[in-house]
Amino acid sequence: MKTLAIIGPGLLGGSIALAARRAGGWRTALWARRAAAVAEIAALGIADAASTDLRGIVAGADLVVLCVPIGAMPALAREIADAISQRTIVTDVGSVKASVVADVGAIFHGRGRFVGSHPMAGSEQTGIGAARAELFDGAACIVTPDAATDAGALAEVRAFWQMLGARVLEVAPAAHDEIVALVSHLPHLLAATLVQTVLAENARAFEFCGPGFCDTTRVAAGPPAMWAEILRTNREAVRKSAEAMIEKLRGIITLLDQDEPMTAFLTAAKTQRDRLRLLK
Amino acid sequence: MKTLAIIGPGLLGGSIALAARRAGGWRTALWARRAAAVAEIAALGIADAASTDLRGIVAGADLVVLCVPIGAMPALAREIADAISQRTIVTDVGSVKASVVADVGAIFHGRGRFVGSHPMAGSEQTGIGAARAELFDGAACIVTPDAATDAGALAEVRAFWQMLGARVLEVAPAAHDEIVALVSHLPHLLAATLVQTVLAENARAFEFCGPGFCDTTRVAAGPPAMWAEILRTNREAVRKSAEAMIEKLRGIITLLDQDEPMTAFLTAAKTQRDRLRLLK
Repeated sequence: MKTLAIIGPGLLGGSIALAARRAGGWRTALWARRAAAVAEIAALGIADAASTDLRGIVAGADLVVLCVPIGAMPALAREIADAISQRTIVTDVGSVKASVVADVGAIFHGRGRFVGSHPMAGSEQTGIGAARAELFDGAACIVTPDAATDAGALAEVRAFWQMLGARVLEVAPAAHDEIVALVSHLPHLLAATLVQTVLAENARAFEFCGPGFCDTTRVAAGPPAMWAEILRTNREAVRKSAEAMIEKLRGIITLLDQDEPMTAFLTAAKTQRDRLRLLK
Repeated sequence: MKTLAIIGPGLLGGSIALAARRAGGWRTALWARRAAAVAEIAALGIADAASTDLRGIVAGADLVVLCVPIGAMPALAREIADAISQRTIVTDVGSVKASVVADVGAIFHGRGRFVGSHPMAGSEQTGIGAARAELFDGAACIVTPDAATDAGALAEVRAFWQMLGARVLEVAPAAHDEIVALVSHLPHLLAATLVQTVLAENARAFEFCGPGFCDTTRVAAGPPAMWAEILRTNREAVRKSAEAMIEKLRGIITLLDQDEPMTAFLTAAKTQRDRLRLLK
């Protein structure tokens, strides 16, 4: 039986606990900052142990997973680093990787073995009440080793995410940040901007929405402070993605009165989007 | 028993037939241009009658619903107008209303009673194979009377959509087109543009997608030629909406390095998007 310490009782932390239990072979211990959250974890029976005592939760852990907002990671990492053994593997679920791997990775240097991770799962729902064992099934999980990453730790972190059901992909931290700016951070910004643009133009517009608008804007219901932090941390790549989107959109607007070029553009987009459906 | 003639065997036409059967009290007759489509309708048992004979399908109908692309409506409307009685009510499901109400409505003037409709239902799926009786349950259906609209016909068309499960909203044709430019046509353009921007920036990006990107871009899988026609027909309102979106997005990009204003913006968007969830 290995011991898994999960730091942070949100949707991802709770789902990791449930998915590890489903896989078997792990004792799960979940840390939460607030006593009320610990009581909720106990009531829901999500982990084998739960506590507000960070050092107690990570003591003896084989694997520690940081499931807190990226801004909270360095301070928690410093506390954890003194309480784990050198063989302990540490990973995280942060949505931005270059800064996390540089800052948090350095804290564990020589005091554990850090590997950056980013499971592309979750939803606009938050909190441990939405946690489920199936969250990672078929989801991409990106691991982001750099020159300092221990090869054995990388292999174990890859195997861990596969055990939880994820497809593991591997890229360097900076490349990760450019890719998620495109497929996650820009779409979030667009969804929020679309909601606010539509209502600014017509206050009654929401009464007229169909399922298309609901899907297109779903991610805008995600937690604002967490997303503001993600967008700020990855601002250069997000800005570049948004500028590319604006430039492309400006070009497409000029095709509005031309059926053939617009059909060709929409056909190309549909062909790619259909390919995405097959990938999933 | 009233007779319902449905012109066009797509997702909407098929779903109207199934929903009318569920409601009861209607004999359904479905027109398709191709004999193969008629055979499919018969095999699926979706309507009481199916034929490629347009005049035969509409003869004696109490209500005719045009479920073909907007560009195909005027020619079909001219054929139908000679074959129906003056008491027959005609409506449509076109996604743009000012031009349809003006052009198609005029064809029926004195030869039937036309009322424009736009059910905000459907999906990126197409074809009668995707038809289902529940498609309109809880969906908005916008009816768009103008000065020429017969009050009795309007009341009957409203009652028809309510019978199929829809929430009926009523606005003038031009106001409809401005609203759907915002809640439907702009989101479609954004979804297609996002797909193409992301792949142009990084050819491997789709491997890294999570459920957020899938939802944000789902509508881009819709039928390209139909959408090019919708966008062209409503191009002035779509252009205005897209310009407003670009301007808003330019402003939001300047907030990327500012946690508090960005959190405030995302909180406002989330509050509105949560309200949409409660409306549905």
